[in-house]
Amino acid sequence: MATKFEGWTAHGTDSIKGNLKWEEYKVKDFQDDDVELKILYSGICSSDLHTMSGNWMDVSKFYPLVVGHEIIGEVIRAGPKAKPKVGDIVGVGPMCDSCLECEYCKKGENNFCTKGTGTYAGKFQRGASAGQDSQGGYANYWRGPDTFVIPVPKGLDLAAAAPLLCAGATVWYPLETYGAGTKAKKVGVVGLGGLGHIAVQFAAALGAEVTVISHSDKKNADAEKMGAKHVIVTGNDPAAAVAPHVRSLDLIVCTSFDEKMPIDAYISLLKPGGTFSCVGLSGKPVVLNPWQFCMNAVHFTSSPAHNPQGAARMLEFAAKHNVKPWITKYPFEKANEAVVSMDKGESRYRHVLVNTNNGGEL
Amino acid sequence: MATKFEGWTAHGTDSIKGNLKWEEYKVKDFQDDDVELKILYSGICSSDLHTMSGNWMDVSKFYPLVVGHEIIGEVIRAGPKAKPKVGDIVGVGPMCDSCLECEYCKKGENNFCTKGTGTYAGKFQRGASAGQDSQGGYANYWRGPDTFVIPVPKGLDLAAAAPLLCAGATVWYPLETYGAGTKAKKVGVVGLGGLGHIAVQFAAALGAEVTVISHSDKKNADAEKMGAKHVIVTGNDPAAAVAPHVRSLDLIVCTSFDEKMPIDAYISLLKPGGTFSCVGLSGKPVVLNPWQFCMNAVHFTSSPAHNPQGAARMLEFAAKHNVKPWITKYPFEKANEAVVSMDKGESRYRHVLVNTNNGGEL
Repeated sequence: MATKFEGWTAHGTDSIKGNLKWEEYKVKDFQDDDVELKILYSGICSSDLHTMSGNWMDVSKFYPLVVGHEIIGEVIRAGPKAKPKVGDIVGVGPMCDSCLECEYCKKGENNFCTKGTGTYAGKFQRGASAGQDSQGGYANYWRGPDTFVIPVPKGLDLAAAAPLLCAGATVWYPLETYGAGTKAKKVGVVGLGGLGHIAVQFAAALGAEVTVISHSDKKNADAEKMGAKHVIVTGNDPAAAVAPHVRSLDLIVCTSFDEKMPIDAYISLLKPGGTFSCVGLSGKPVVLNPWQFCMNAVHFTSSPAHNPQGAARMLEFAAKHNVKPWITKYPFEKANEAVVSMDKGESRYRHVLVNTNNGGEL
Repeated sequence: MATKFEGWTAHGTDSIKGNLKWEEYKVKDFQDDDVELKILYSGICSSDLHTMSGNWMDVSKFYPLVVGHEIIGEVIRAGPKAKPKVGDIVGVGPMCDSCLECEYCKKGENNFCTKGTGTYAGKFQRGASAGQDSQGGYANYWRGPDTFVIPVPKGLDLAAAAPLLCAGATVWYPLETYGAGTKAKKVGVVGLGGLGHIAVQFAAALGAEVTVISHSDKKNADAEKMGAKHVIVTGNDPAAAVAPHVRSLDLIVCTSFDEKMPIDAYISLLKPGGTFSCVGLSGKPVVLNPWQFCMNAVHFTSSPAHNPQGAARMLEFAAKHNVKPWITKYPFEKANEAVVSMDKGESRYRHVLVNTNNGGEL
């Protein structure tokens, strides 16, 4: 019997206000390298809300749109060319396909492929799937190519693992790339939210001394539990708050961004040669003070979520070191409630939808 | 007999309009680690003009100000604790001192010392010299500590070597740091001027394939002579000009900066993970497109001129590989004429003052 795809669909920019509708929707045609997953858990990411509300781009051509790119599921169907097998527990993050032919795909850096397909609000570009929409994880099932389907190692709490697929991979990239715990012994994390609270845990587990930079002191106790050694509370006078800590950090992973954030103050925390990786970007331009860069040879960068191998290393590391997102579980039926709560900034620190019909555990 | 210091002094922001005055001026008290140089050659750097004209900061408290930080001279007096000896040929670049006590000074990264002293328009901060003004190289003699006095290897054309002390060290830093010719096999240079024409030569000599990015095609033949393989002429439609070359470069050394320059187009030339090092900064804010960084994990950076060891390596490399700035020589008497010409953008590619009274050769 053909799988019947039903999910929480968005039909307009007000969908994040409690207007997602549970209904059947169309997915891509099944190809030889495709898999189908029975979705157990689906994390709610800010990107889902930015996308549905049209903050980043007009997505009306994708309606009915099913978002969600922190998917944990069990393989229930696997094409003859797909690597995962039926029964495997796997994860899907923010990308679900790439061209497989360019120099980046060939060397395993599929996340840099210019023909990459987002897990939702994207168009597949390869072969017979070309032109078909990608659909995400607020659903009972997921179908897509095996390109970015990541094996989930044993030992992970599957519900808590869901946010690792996007939030985890996103912060893992700079931590791994810039050597948290080795070359970068002192790591700062700006913002203790969905991304930040995982970054702190990863950085600490990698052996770095972690400083959280936050605008208030409300989460100080949480930061400590996650492994942070220090918290810098920027409050109303960020320059004064950072002054005693100037040039103390090798790497800063910035998990939030707004135009008014005191980026100069944050960057002043870097040692010469250090790196400010802003993975929490909005679409707003970044304005930098040139002298800070000239005098200190510091770096500004950002990155997409990781490539499939990087994501797999991240999951292995999380399993081994017990890195575990702090989550609130919502039954799948309460997706609207969960999205509204996320939009209000109530998440401490990630909301995860649990599909009990498919075996997910509340 | 005490050395009589005479030089071309600036007394106002109009000094670059032909108003430098030759006169005696005061220098720091001689300390045990000081040297005195008989100046043979003195390069004219844009920084000299920016400083004198007050573009960067109000320098009136330093009047009478003697600029010049591309100095080649012969040691005529050396304190008992100074490393260079009388008779040595040495160079001085844009910094002339640092605290010698901080963690950066101790590991040889004196260029990152927060108490560093600029070669002119600076205040010495150590010991008995604290509070005394630094003065530069448009002069017959120079006096200062040995901290940043760099040995000049045999085999260098001394007049052409002068611009290496600032322009050369400035472009050498990113080329060396980001592995031009090794990790960065394809290097772009934005702007073929005082800095750019040295960057092209260094990058080519380091084994990189060099692309010059220029707004006009006027210097194409020069670029080729300097070792460039390709020139991208951005003209009136930079986005169209760079389109065929997107993601082709590992490293870009940008030697010019103005707010209107098509920085997004330049950065699109970087391969994922690449670095845009903007060493030709003005004081204007840098505005970056966040998605470019997010999708490609590229880096924006800048840097000060090199530390003493780096500058020494740079001079050794230049001597060995015959990297030689293209210069126009002006007798010291014609300093005003040379500065006015530099201000008009006539330099191809660096003006150097020659002190024939001290043995400099026209």
